[in-house]
Amino acid sequence: MLPPRYARGEVFREKFSVDPVGNEHNSSKNTTSHIPARIPRLMMHENSEGKLSQGKIAALSCPLPLMDHATVQLAHGGGGRLMQQLIEGLFLPIFSRTEGAGHRAAVLHDSAVLNLSGCRLAFTTDSFVVQPLFFPGGDIGKLAVFGTVNDLAMAGAKPIALSASFILEEGFELDRLRQIVESMQKAAEEAEVVIVTGDTKVVDRGKGDGLFVTTAGIGLVPTGVNIRPDRVRPEDCVIVSGDLGRHGIAIMSVREGLSFECPLESDCAPLAGLVATLLEAGIPVHCMRDLTRGGLAAALNEIARHAQVGMELEEESIPVSAAVRGACELLGLDPLYVANEGRLVAFIPPEAASRAVECLRQHPLGKQAAIIGRCTAEQPGLVVARGPWGTDRIIDLLSGEQMPRIC
Amino acid sequence: MLPPRYARGEVFREKFSVDPVGNEHNSSKNTTSHIPARIPRLMMHENSEGKLSQGKIAALSCPLPLMDHATVQLAHGGGGRLMQQLIEGLFLPIFSRTEGAGHRAAVLHDSAVLNLSGCRLAFTTDSFVVQPLFFPGGDIGKLAVFGTVNDLAMAGAKPIALSASFILEEGFELDRLRQIVESMQKAAEEAEVVIVTGDTKVVDRGKGDGLFVTTAGIGLVPTGVNIRPDRVRPEDCVIVSGDLGRHGIAIMSVREGLSFECPLESDCAPLAGLVATLLEAGIPVHCMRDLTRGGLAAALNEIARHAQVGMELEEESIPVSAAVRGACELLGLDPLYVANEGRLVAFIPPEAASRAVECLRQHPLGKQAAIIGRCTAEQPGLVVARGPWGTDRIIDLLSGEQMPRIC
Repeated sequence: MLPPRYARGEVFREKFSVDPVGNEHNSSKNTTSHIPARIPRLMMHENSEGKLSQGKIAALSCPLPLMDHATVQLAHGGGGRLMQQLIEGLFLPIFSRTEGAGHRAAVLHDSAVLNLSGCRLAFTTDSFVVQPLFFPGGDIGKLAVFGTVNDLAMAGAKPIALSASFILEEGFELDRLRQIVESMQKAAEEAEVVIVTGDTKVVDRGKGDGLFVTTAGIGLVPTGVNIRPDRVRPEDCVIVSGDLGRHGIAIMSVREGLSFECPLESDCAPLAGLVATLLEAGIPVHCMRDLTRGGLAAALNEIARHAQVGMELEEESIPVSAAVRGACELLGLDPLYVANEGRLVAFIPPEAASRAVECLRQHPLGKQAAIIGRCTAEQPGLVVARGPWGTDRIIDLLSGEQMPRIC
Repeated sequence: MLPPRYARGEVFREKFSVDPVGNEHNSSKNTTSHIPARIPRLMMHENSEGKLSQGKIAALSCPLPLMDHATVQLAHGGGGRLMQQLIEGLFLPIFSRTEGAGHRAAVLHDSAVLNLSGCRLAFTTDSFVVQPLFFPGGDIGKLAVFGTVNDLAMAGAKPIALSASFILEEGFELDRLRQIVESMQKAAEEAEVVIVTGDTKVVDRGKGDGLFVTTAGIGLVPTGVNIRPDRVRPEDCVIVSGDLGRHGIAIMSVREGLSFECPLESDCAPLAGLVATLLEAGIPVHCMRDLTRGGLAAALNEIARHAQVGMELEEESIPVSAAVRGACELLGLDPLYVANEGRLVAFIPPEAASRAVECLRQHPLGKQAAIIGRCTAEQPGLVVARGPWGTDRIIDLLSGEQMPRIC
């Protein structure tokens, strides 16, 4: 049994979507109006005896970073608690407000799904600020296209069209820009989408960082497909589509000048085909999430809280390559928290789980798919991993920033 | 008669859209494959007699800036020739490529229009990097929402939903962020759209400039509405919806610390309602364009080239407020080149033109609507303004950058 403080686990959402008015799942109970604008301050105070005490009992357990900032911190973009605070405390309460009608439901999912004169449209966006712009296995352009395609795929949508908007820094080499744009087009062809609209802005030298790109995407959700975090049930199996941590480690290896015996490339890939394979096989997918910033840990925490289920993982069944495992040991990282750009986690009812894994394994991007755990009705919101010696550890959110600008 | 060199006027497009495969107007002849990757170098050379000569006769007329750069210049974002070169020489040839099928047609319009299972969807995006973030009459958030709503409206679409993606610089005040997000929501309510999905990234201090925001938008194009630059005809009347230059001058006044006797505010406004008024009255609108970077001059040049028509303006009929005119004289600017954020130009067949102006004037945002000129079959691609003394001047594109980061 875990101490009760763990059960409070609050979950960030790296992306946010607001339920459009009139959408069919307005009945969701998770409105943002219940979320306090600020998470209570957890700071060290000197008490009257001159010793350090805590404002909150929870904070006694371990040193906690400041959570109440007046300015943007790097960790606000990192996929941990601070980002959760920013999204749920600032963006969602404002954007989900509807005049005269209180709040719309906030569905913390990768794409918004809209009903438009007969067609169900998925709509999503992402900004990319990764450094370096080119890394083993990809570049910012490929990342931007696949990232947005994947967000659409996570709603079960067939991606149709993307937009691409560039913020360039004065002095950026046009040849590198051309290389990135070429890479985006190649990625779009691979993912079978078209880049149909775009924009360019230039900022003065020192006010940007070479190039930032923001993609938005639209896709069509087939009739009958309804993939959403609140459909996850306590008995669902947790399935990952492949080994974890390649993207984060590929980026870190360039930044830190590390090289490994076996070359380590980003897993950056478009997941729409993999998802289509699952759906066409008739697998009743309850929810999916692509694993980006914050890794598997962030995705699971978020869904656990949203669906009010607990999750129990078997740590040994989680696929991690030897190269990533080695690099993580070297760098002091936990692969469950490392970013991916071509992996998903799916929640599938137990009777369909092994069929889903077989189905995934037939696709080139799902060769290492595995059932890594199951959802439970106990400890809703809590993710626990059982290690090889039978010890449990909590897979909580990071408080700070592990790797800034990973995507 | 104008010297032939003017007739070569090449036109940038501040935004770009690519015709999605299978769209109904694939027959457009303006494919980007004909556009050279680089505009020929126009530089001063010393000839054998030691005197300066020109590589091109055209360059004799006036000092010309370098047009062939290896790196991004501020003017690449400014709405002049360099931006044209970037968009038409780099982005469009790559993004309009379709595997095995050569190039798709590039429609240089504010939104892409897609046919999706029975509904015609407009899709657009814009990044905003304006400095300062707050200015008289608006802020970057309001600008972002209205800018995207206006791009949708220019395709005749009813705006439905927006995405908002933020790139924040470490250290940016969260209270200012909250203020901007509040302003976006207020603007969305005013424009009757919902912000349904979003993303946040943080870059390290010194690698951004406080806050950049990128919005994308989708809207529905009603049946029968077909508003596109290539529908402009030689006899069409050119109509503007109001007085010009307010946004640019409002920004400049803050930057330069100027104040005017009468307060000057940005014209920043959502134009979808104004467009709906026109369409509901049955006005056969051939084309519309909202006037942003590069002002009226840029919009007209682009459409003149795209539709292969000439344009003759009556300078005295172009509405410019006394305050903007005064500020422009003080700052040495031409109001036709100054940015707007709540004005449009419409191309209407002559028989419907006065009815269109009446119709626009009934809307609060169109009170100063006026016919300012007409299209001609002569001098295709060329925009000429006749001054009060009967003298003609060419309204050409700017070569350099008038006001960086105006939107």
